[in-house]
Amino acid sequence: MMYKLDSKTEKALHIQLYEALKDDIINNLKVGDKLPSIRELCSNYNISKTTVQNAYNQLYAEGYIDSIPKKGYFVSELLECQFSPKISATSKESKKQYRYDFSPTKHHKSYFPIKIWKRLSHKALNLDLDFASYSNGQGELALREEIAKYLQNSRGVKARASNIVISSGFITAITLVAKLLKQKYANFAIESPGYYITENIFKEYGYKISKISLNMGGINLDELSKSDAKVVYITPSHQYPTGLVMPISKRQRVIELMHKKDGYIIEDDYDSELNYQSRPIPSLHGLDNYDRVIYVGTFAKALSPALRVTYMHLSDELLKAFKLSYDSHFCSVNIHTQKTLELFLKEGYFNRHLRKIRAQNKKKHNLMIKCLKSELGCSFEFVAKGAGLAILIYPKGSFNWQKFKELLEKESIKVYFASLCNTSNFEAIRLGFGNFDLDEIPKAIKAFAKVWKGSLK
Amino acid sequence: MMYKLDSKTEKALHIQLYEALKDDIINNLKVGDKLPSIRELCSNYNISKTTVQNAYNQLYAEGYIDSIPKKGYFVSELLECQFSPKISATSKESKKQYRYDFSPTKHHKSYFPIKIWKRLSHKALNLDLDFASYSNGQGELALREEIAKYLQNSRGVKARASNIVISSGFITAITLVAKLLKQKYANFAIESPGYYITENIFKEYGYKISKISLNMGGINLDELSKSDAKVVYITPSHQYPTGLVMPISKRQRVIELMHKKDGYIIEDDYDSELNYQSRPIPSLHGLDNYDRVIYVGTFAKALSPALRVTYMHLSDELLKAFKLSYDSHFCSVNIHTQKTLELFLKEGYFNRHLRKIRAQNKKKHNLMIKCLKSELGCSFEFVAKGAGLAILIYPKGSFNWQKFKELLEKESIKVYFASLCNTSNFEAIRLGFGNFDLDEIPKAIKAFAKVWKGSLK
Repeated sequence: MMYKLDSKTEKALHIQLYEALKDDIINNLKVGDKLPSIRELCSNYNISKTTVQNAYNQLYAEGYIDSIPKKGYFVSELLECQFSPKISATSKESKKQYRYDFSPTKHHKSYFPIKIWKRLSHKALNLDLDFASYSNGQGELALREEIAKYLQNSRGVKARASNIVISSGFITAITLVAKLLKQKYANFAIESPGYYITENIFKEYGYKISKISLNMGGINLDELSKSDAKVVYITPSHQYPTGLVMPISKRQRVIELMHKKDGYIIEDDYDSELNYQSRPIPSLHGLDNYDRVIYVGTFAKALSPALRVTYMHLSDELLKAFKLSYDSHFCSVNIHTQKTLELFLKEGYFNRHLRKIRAQNKKKHNLMIKCLKSELGCSFEFVAKGAGLAILIYPKGSFNWQKFKELLEKESIKVYFASLCNTSNFEAIRLGFGNFDLDEIPKAIKAFAKVWKGSLK
Repeated sequence: MMYKLDSKTEKALHIQLYEALKDDIINNLKVGDKLPSIRELCSNYNISKTTVQNAYNQLYAEGYIDSIPKKGYFVSELLECQFSPKISATSKESKKQYRYDFSPTKHHKSYFPIKIWKRLSHKALNLDLDFASYSNGQGELALREEIAKYLQNSRGVKARASNIVISSGFITAITLVAKLLKQKYANFAIESPGYYITENIFKEYGYKISKISLNMGGINLDELSKSDAKVVYITPSHQYPTGLVMPISKRQRVIELMHKKDGYIIEDDYDSELNYQSRPIPSLHGLDNYDRVIYVGTFAKALSPALRVTYMHLSDELLKAFKLSYDSHFCSVNIHTQKTLELFLKEGYFNRHLRKIRAQNKKKHNLMIKCLKSELGCSFEFVAKGAGLAILIYPKGSFNWQKFKELLEKESIKVYFASLCNTSNFEAIRLGFGNFDLDEIPKAIKAFAKVWKGSLK
């Protein structure tokens, strides 16, 4: 067998030789066959001993050959080795584009303060960040301090930087909470309808799930009291998906109840910054004197879903458990993003941004309501409005849902259904407005109204 | 009660009024007490009706007051409301600094190509990234394509962009794998000693764990074959923590075995880019013709631990399960980091970087070995060397471990113990070298040798 070696290509000679020998082993040689000696290869190909040695070392390291002192190299005990044809690394992926997409999570492109972010991002990279080590497992202290200040001042959370854990999105955060609580608890309660992702995460961790119905102002406290769950997940400032706000008296009662149970409340405060009827409702956490509330917040609604930053405020007990777990070694948000966000908060841009987007979204929200009223008349009712990024409506009379869905497809309009989120028997149409330009809203609702009217029985 | 309202401060009048009324409710009034009428407040404080209405709306939204038509506002049914003293948002956290830290995960500060990264980071932010929506749940296609190409060319993985999932660190990635496999499997096997974090994650998901011992070239296949586990986690290119390399014949046999079991191999290829004796060992994935290997790789060792980017190559079956799960909606790495990394790969910097750090680390690795030999003589043996960021050693004769630990503290030297990673009965001292300057190594080993010699019996 003659190998083709070319000293003029970029590929090193020892790699060419290694590849040629490997090919030979796979395709021609048998187990136990002797390979050419080093001297042989040196003289046949006019290459150095080091080149040959390097090629053989690599084959040896990968286990293709055995080396028998004073005897030479032999093909190692090898099973059939089938190499499949080369496949393409690339692929095509497409996503349907709609004429009007009433997405309840998308923001308008102008939402994100890209100019400021660019400047701060660059500034952050000039601050000698340590990319060579794992960063603080809870998130960098300086960012946690900025978040704690924001939570104290704007959300009424009794926040301490020491108890904050930063993570890359809600799933990562709530998975960690489920894991930490598992050491002590086995039963978990959630609002029904409620946020299906949280329910699934706790289910996957083996918790027994109690679904607690809603009544005035949120979760039914009698039901919760009777259930054997000691951990409850609630969205008190803007119930998901019904939009209910839990009043102060009920907030106090749920805290008392879970304290009596020696349990925990997970408060998901996902979009409370976006409130158009009043100022943001202060957090439940601020009312808690027993350290029973685990607070979860996010920058996805108020700043950017693509930034992937969520934060939690853990109780002292849970913080202790966190510090003992392997999770405490690794924060899932990279230091550059952390530093940029820290500057964004510290230099006052976040508060400025919140004022701006609240005003912008309020305009869109109010216009949407006006258009819905004038286009749909009294054929519908509002299920939820006044906050967040979507208005929820429901038809008043009889309604052909099948036809509705067909017409939506035909007109290339995308709306979202509450029931798609596993929300048991609760149904509502979620019409997001954040994605639209203000002057697009009347047109979008006009197009939607055409579909709606065609679906009325 | 007279409220202090000041029209000259920055705080809006309706917020001042809201806060004053809330204080009054909490501290002075009782459930059912009537609040001043709107007209009363307007004339007493010479403020507009809107101002008062806004304040009352906020109190109402939060549940402090009830509104009875034609009668006015009343303090709502309220439980005791104790507000605890203001706490400080900031805190102090300190970490002990060592004179010599033989960290097995830290890189030298010069490791990360900060200048290039800065330029690409800036370039990425000028590319009109969409911060207003959730990005692709698997990670952006363009980055997945670059990773697939790298894996094909450098790691021999049969990689397709369509099957890659990007996530923010190993824990997030392996947690997802544990979750997806749980739908079909209940038993899990891992090398012993092996990577304790993976073991814990599968344990927390309720898997029955089989610890499989090691023999020549890695995991004991007879034991694996007899165990009822259908999922096995291995580190074939550089066994953690012993450093064993699995030869090609064993690789083929483990694939055949897991195929026969209708199961999966999770191949963790965490630091195979760093090999100083031969070229990197190609992946196990490249030998698999049955789609039985889930490949996990990371940028933590080869680029930066603080960047938080890990990737997996899922089998078609697992990809299908992933697409049906809620996880498929959210990628945990932000789009800016994704785009910067994509450019870093696409423009050839990653390959250049790998060549550079391989050469740098090889020098450190070889110097470390030379120094250990000359300083410790024949009082130790190498447990693992030749790859990664640490050399593992073990004392040959009798050794006073207690004294060793005390002397290390006294001399302010930090080394790492394999046993600390729950690695059952396996013990070795892990001496990382990445963190050091080249000329620091002789000094560090000299200091270490002093401690070592003081611990020999």
